[in-house]
Amino acid sequence: MAMKEFRSALGETSGPKHMSVEEFRTNGYRVIDWLCNYYEHIDSFPVAPLVQPGDIRGDLPASPPFEPVTFPEILSDVEKILLPGITHWQSPGFFAYFPANASPPSVLGELVSAGLGVQGMLWHTSPSCTELETLVLDWIVDMLALPDQFRSTGLGGGVIQDSASSATLCAVLAARERLEERSPCQTGADPGFVGYCSEEAHSSVEKAFSIAGLGRKRLRKIATDSDQAIDLGALTEHISVDLKKGLTPFFVCATVGTTSTLSTDSVRGVGLISQEYNLWLHVDAAMAGTASVCPEFRYLNEGLEKAASYCFNPHKWMLTNFDCNCFYVADRRPLNNAMSVLPEYLKNKNSEKEEVIDYRDWQIPLGRRFRSLKLWFVIRSYGIRGIQSFIRHHVFLARNFARWVDEDPDFELVKYTGLNLVCFRVKGDDTHNNILLNALNETGTLFLSHTMIEGKFALRLCIGQVWIDKEKVLESWETIKRVASSL
Amino acid sequence: MAMKEFRSALGETSGPKHMSVEEFRTNGYRVIDWLCNYYEHIDSFPVAPLVQPGDIRGDLPASPPFEPVTFPEILSDVEKILLPGITHWQSPGFFAYFPANASPPSVLGELVSAGLGVQGMLWHTSPSCTELETLVLDWIVDMLALPDQFRSTGLGGGVIQDSASSATLCAVLAARERLEERSPCQTGADPGFVGYCSEEAHSSVEKAFSIAGLGRKRLRKIATDSDQAIDLGALTEHISVDLKKGLTPFFVCATVGTTSTLSTDSVRGVGLISQEYNLWLHVDAAMAGTASVCPEFRYLNEGLEKAASYCFNPHKWMLTNFDCNCFYVADRRPLNNAMSVLPEYLKNKNSEKEEVIDYRDWQIPLGRRFRSLKLWFVIRSYGIRGIQSFIRHHVFLARNFARWVDEDPDFELVKYTGLNLVCFRVKGDDTHNNILLNALNETGTLFLSHTMIEGKFALRLCIGQVWIDKEKVLESWETIKRVASSL
Repeated sequence: MAMKEFRSALGETSGPKHMSVEEFRTNGYRVIDWLCNYYEHIDSFPVAPLVQPGDIRGDLPASPPFEPVTFPEILSDVEKILLPGITHWQSPGFFAYFPANASPPSVLGELVSAGLGVQGMLWHTSPSCTELETLVLDWIVDMLALPDQFRSTGLGGGVIQDSASSATLCAVLAARERLEERSPCQTGADPGFVGYCSEEAHSSVEKAFSIAGLGRKRLRKIATDSDQAIDLGALTEHISVDLKKGLTPFFVCATVGTTSTLSTDSVRGVGLISQEYNLWLHVDAAMAGTASVCPEFRYLNEGLEKAASYCFNPHKWMLTNFDCNCFYVADRRPLNNAMSVLPEYLKNKNSEKEEVIDYRDWQIPLGRRFRSLKLWFVIRSYGIRGIQSFIRHHVFLARNFARWVDEDPDFELVKYTGLNLVCFRVKGDDTHNNILLNALNETGTLFLSHTMIEGKFALRLCIGQVWIDKEKVLESWETIKRVASSL
Repeated sequence: MAMKEFRSALGETSGPKHMSVEEFRTNGYRVIDWLCNYYEHIDSFPVAPLVQPGDIRGDLPASPPFEPVTFPEILSDVEKILLPGITHWQSPGFFAYFPANASPPSVLGELVSAGLGVQGMLWHTSPSCTELETLVLDWIVDMLALPDQFRSTGLGGGVIQDSASSATLCAVLAARERLEERSPCQTGADPGFVGYCSEEAHSSVEKAFSIAGLGRKRLRKIATDSDQAIDLGALTEHISVDLKKGLTPFFVCATVGTTSTLSTDSVRGVGLISQEYNLWLHVDAAMAGTASVCPEFRYLNEGLEKAASYCFNPHKWMLTNFDCNCFYVADRRPLNNAMSVLPEYLKNKNSEKEEVIDYRDWQIPLGRRFRSLKLWFVIRSYGIRGIQSFIRHHVFLARNFARWVDEDPDFELVKYTGLNLVCFRVKGDDTHNNILLNALNETGTLFLSHTMIEGKFALRLCIGQVWIDKEKVLESWETIKRVASSL
């Protein structure tokens, strides 16, 4: 058949001019060079940008271009227009929230993943994507000394989610599925499912209850003790009251490292209660989870063998760029049952034989990127040894910072749990501390966030960046002292 | 303060050796070169790999490494171990499912995004990330001639989600929120929410009902007419029956381009019904949505001004690598109310003044990547002109392929709706066609998937790849004819 047999009433078209492979090489080098330059000068930018709402949009054209523009022009606009409105999460001066650290190998892993452009919804749609993910998640069971029930070789297994929020939602959905093998409301009767977490648990637990249609009020937020850990007596009491009301307790979330202060619930204590009342125990270790790569921090996970699910974020403290959450279940069936819908167009012989994992049945979306690649790049580039050293260095820096605060008569160490988050305040009232926070962030040399601890405003300084060093921590402490004394 | 003031009981640590900026440059060039080589030879790999379950994992070490390995070693293992198990979604021979196309500018946009490592949960956590997204989503309203209610300058607006599945879930949750301003089950009474879509709607609508706790059975799958479009009479009838039962119809999903055949519901027809019964109309144009960049395909969206929400996937047919779904709402308040939980540690003065968009309240997860960057790279690199040309070229190729099938006495054109998906079969029974499908995929030169249309097995050939050309389409048709005649 000859080419002339292509016919068109529309007029023939040959498609747009794509960037050629050679142009991709040139522009790819340009982007790599641009990033190298960015990393070399990252310390020179205000960590949090000094822009007002609308400033960035105002510098961009209101309408999309009809004609193409060149790649160097685009990259130049990133530099000139966007960079002034970027918060520099990779700056060594970024101490706010929790970090979203992006090590060089993880950035390159993301590039390989984007370039391959694989969509791994089924084993069948890219076997390497699925099998590498299963393997790496099993590796991490070894690395963090997680209990055996989370290995894919048994009834459980791990999967990469975008975030701990999605992992928590999956845990809630699997817990509901396990208990009733049907959804609430499905029969027209409210089964009265109730769940529990501490007042300090992450906001995503409440969001999950809302999304799942259980109702935000059906999540009981249990009081915490003086360590900001869940009060086990209060938890048991709440469950008893709910049972007496005819409700159905089904889920409890324990936190290893709360967002506010990095406090940790007793996983063993909550685990014993979850066993007694047949609750699904989900353990959220989003930030602190990585610490257990070091044997000396494994006390955090004591009792984890009682958990039905567990998650932590390599994109927070394990050198892997956002998004990358590792979510484990002890029994994959309720999760898969809650998530699976199988239309004809996804059927294939491998799935039918149940020989393979189809990760679409482990998550909210159908499609998925090849995210295990960047995690594999990180683990191999650093080795367990390097990741341990990363964690220990941050803890070392945070411990020193906490000691300086504690020893300084002008400051108060509000909470430090021994890991990498220090909550502190200058002596004075909340307003004064809020003014200090804004003044510090306006220096541009560092970026902190805040929280409320037992009714008191506290500044949060979290050390988890790739490029942090002793000099920067010292310089930041000097800045904090100087700005505080100048107010 | 001198360095000696750093003290440690653990023994001082200086952290791991990171890849230096210069090493990052060298390794970054290596990855770019590797991808160039991959693109140059992509046609030489079997599109779907010839591996068995466990093959890839079996070639990888069972345990994680304690010591680091070099970057070239990792990249070499990608080539030697992973590549044989990759399904080549970017190969011109990939015709299965819907494409997940990744143009060179989008890959480089993803690289910039990964390198900057910004987490845009709040405006405050990176103003450029939020403002560029809002702008680009407004641009797309212009580009696709979407109705004005979806512009951020009014009550509505757009947001990037990972996938149409998540967008549909958000639509269901917002619809529920709007109707009741409370979640079902919250009061202990089942409000009896029921929703509607056609039998041909995407599986994610059912998944959303399951996740939201509404119950899968509360989604009515309405029969389709001979065009595989929703039967409007049957829809009205179902609503009437549900109302008589005392149930509460609240949601309907219309599909512009079904997954099975790219058939399209009458958006206007469904819209009129949704108005009459006060249903939230969500329009899912995941694949076909991009077509309306061309004026000649805007008939697909006729009636869209009646929709409460809309989504399409630039990661399918708009040259942007996965993941990138654009989700629009006419009124952002019910979505934000359904999604918002505001803990102390996320409060900031900009959010309080309500001057800014915080996209965390528009999605399931809390954290988010800087995904608008790659979309902005694509739109600027191609211009509207280039994207139109991309769509027209694919439609041109698909129309010719459909004509060849139709004119061939050995084949049957089962369904072709005039866009870029051709559903066809060889004369013979379903088993014969299934054998043909497997035999074709085993040639390695192309990869097709299948569906069932009115009870008949049909092969699906979708043209949406970046690198497709006339020669490949012609060669693929020759292969199909040759393999079919050899069976």
